[in-house]
Amino acid sequence: MNRFTLLAEDGAARRGRLETAHGTVETPVFMPVGTAAAVKTLEPRDLEALGARIVLANTYHLFLRPGHERVQRLGRLHRFMSWPGAVLTDSGGFQVFSLGERTGRVKGGPGLVTIAEEGVTFRSHLDGSRQFLSPEKAIAVQEALGADVIMAFDECPPSLADRAYHERSLARTQRWLVRCRQAWREIEDRRADDPGAEQYACDLFGIAQGGLHPDLRARAIEEAAALELPGYALGGYAVGEEPAQMWEGVERDAPRLPRGKPRYLMGVGTPEDLLAGIAAGIDMFDCVLPTRTARNGLLFTSRGKVVIRNARHADDTGPIDPACTCYTCRTFTRAYLRHLFKAGEILALRANTLHNLHFYLSLMQGAREAIEQGRFQSFRRERLAAWREGDPT
Amino acid sequence: MNRFTLLAEDGAARRGRLETAHGTVETPVFMPVGTAAAVKTLEPRDLEALGARIVLANTYHLFLRPGHERVQRLGRLHRFMSWPGAVLTDSGGFQVFSLGERTGRVKGGPGLVTIAEEGVTFRSHLDGSRQFLSPEKAIAVQEALGADVIMAFDECPPSLADRAYHERSLARTQRWLVRCRQAWREIEDRRADDPGAEQYACDLFGIAQGGLHPDLRARAIEEAAALELPGYALGGYAVGEEPAQMWEGVERDAPRLPRGKPRYLMGVGTPEDLLAGIAAGIDMFDCVLPTRTARNGLLFTSRGKVVIRNARHADDTGPIDPACTCYTCRTFTRAYLRHLFKAGEILALRANTLHNLHFYLSLMQGAREAIEQGRFQSFRRERLAAWREGDPT
Repeated sequence: MNRFTLLAEDGAARRGRLETAHGTVETPVFMPVGTAAAVKTLEPRDLEALGARIVLANTYHLFLRPGHERVQRLGRLHRFMSWPGAVLTDSGGFQVFSLGERTGRVKGGPGLVTIAEEGVTFRSHLDGSRQFLSPEKAIAVQEALGADVIMAFDECPPSLADRAYHERSLARTQRWLVRCRQAWREIEDRRADDPGAEQYACDLFGIAQGGLHPDLRARAIEEAAALELPGYALGGYAVGEEPAQMWEGVERDAPRLPRGKPRYLMGVGTPEDLLAGIAAGIDMFDCVLPTRTARNGLLFTSRGKVVIRNARHADDTGPIDPACTCYTCRTFTRAYLRHLFKAGEILALRANTLHNLHFYLSLMQGAREAIEQGRFQSFRRERLAAWREGDPT
Repeated sequence: MNRFTLLAEDGAARRGRLETAHGTVETPVFMPVGTAAAVKTLEPRDLEALGARIVLANTYHLFLRPGHERVQRLGRLHRFMSWPGAVLTDSGGFQVFSLGERTGRVKGGPGLVTIAEEGVTFRSHLDGSRQFLSPEKAIAVQEALGADVIMAFDECPPSLADRAYHERSLARTQRWLVRCRQAWREIEDRRADDPGAEQYACDLFGIAQGGLHPDLRARAIEEAAALELPGYALGGYAVGEEPAQMWEGVERDAPRLPRGKPRYLMGVGTPEDLLAGIAAGIDMFDCVLPTRTARNGLLFTSRGKVVIRNARHADDTGPIDPACTCYTCRTFTRAYLRHLFKAGEILALRANTLHNLHFYLSLMQGAREAIEQGRFQSFRRERLAAWREGDPT
């Protein structure tokens, strides 16, 4: 089992440490997303240089291509990707619903995604082939992929689905969680008996759903906590609701998660969201935002966002952010980056990605230091004020 | 003026050194192509790590976007790209004809590209706008871009155009060469009088055309040599003829170029072509082949070519080339690279590009050492044999 240690608290904010067989992860941490076993445009050495110590990979994508059994044969994710740090995989549930061409799912009608008690039948977004994932299958796939942290198989309904749907869905997700735990424990037992097995933990985190309904969230958290899992996540945030609704929910839910276990807010979010989540006591985050927006030319800076394709940068010989120490800012001007982006050069996508991830990881580094020094709230206020005031583009 | 020194000869093959204000270039040299002021997918630090000391940038592309005047304002190419090494620009002539939607050009009919004695009118491949380049304009644009070596503005007809066309075209190209030289000398004079001017050479290389006609080539070379330019290129090879025809032509023409000046074979070529060119006495090469094929998944190895998307690599835990020391081969398996390529990951393009350029630059390094040691012909024979025999995909 990975070991989680709570090092300091500052209000509800927490400074922790997750020790895995693939290195130590200081929390709060942002996990770059490596959907298909690669953080888009970046090499493992880039991630290491950026200070990333854990990345997320998507079970759904790897299950479909190149296949979990192939990844397992090739040495599991760490060797496959040549990534020495820690890896967390999601369960595939979120993508099954979001990429599997959902039709009538929430309304209960028949669709390309069919949810049954046993599991979910869906069509591959790659070739339309019929696929099936269940709690047991999702755990087995993740174990084959070889992540240090694996996630329970759940349904993540849109926040704004009606309450009756949330109730039905949550009840099923909770039953699935019990099955996930059972499947995971069987794997753990098998591994313990197999001297040839990989000697590192494959820790299952539970996920609490419940939409924007406080009582459903409370029940989900309580039932999950009773299962005594190695970590817990809040799912179902940032799926359609307003930021203020999410922050209110996270502020309410996060402190209810077991104090001694890592707390992970899935798929979140903007820099503002990260600070709100940390303030609420969240330890782990992941989101495609910094990498996806980078490829769209949206850059985060200490003075707010920059849209690099804007004409105002055409003759700007300054860096994206004078306060930034990333390779891109040390090397390239806004004028050059704008040119690369407009010319469709792949280098633009990479340079932007390096910068945005550096911004996110530096923000987390700053937050960790602030918590250690008991000044997280002022750190948060100062950052938010600086983002709001400067460099509007 | 850059200084060229002939260090050793081995048969017709030459080992030389081109000293520029932006570093020393050991020859024979392969120049990676950075069309839009970026070698696709790579950062300047990658090029330095690969041992590249000179890159080529395309005048046509930069003239249209972001514009030579903007590049000049932004510190010319070296500062714009953040590239400390040497830069060579072509004249734009080749792309004017190949990208400017030629219609009826060779046959003499009216087309979107109109050649007159004064210069060439063409339409931008970006927005269809009407553009004009002449010998004087091409020199002025290249001077503004700030390359260490600039090229004469010429027409590059398909090898297999008829002789009458080659004769007419060559005569005009030769008149243009005289005008290029005049324009270049005026710039040099102006720079010499301007204490604020950039203190580095902008050396004009002449280009000899003539297709596959030995007498036209001989005349072109003789007339160009009489102009006493800092360097000379063979243009119009690898534009439609068979490799054997090109090698025969280059073998005949290269030794006729002035011995004390650098000799550049434009737009060539395959690894086999490079060895043939070196054997004929060529010092400089450029080609999009290693970078473009990398993005298409074709990889060069010490045992021949590898098509990375092929199913036979799906479970191959070996590197692209066990004999290769590039980052890609030190880090990634064929199985992972195939996965990245099939998944459309940008990282695949970059990893492949790093490898192919490493292959090309290492080949040139090997050739330089072989010439120094008087064993270039055996070096060439061994390489050709190894490429032919191994790893067919």
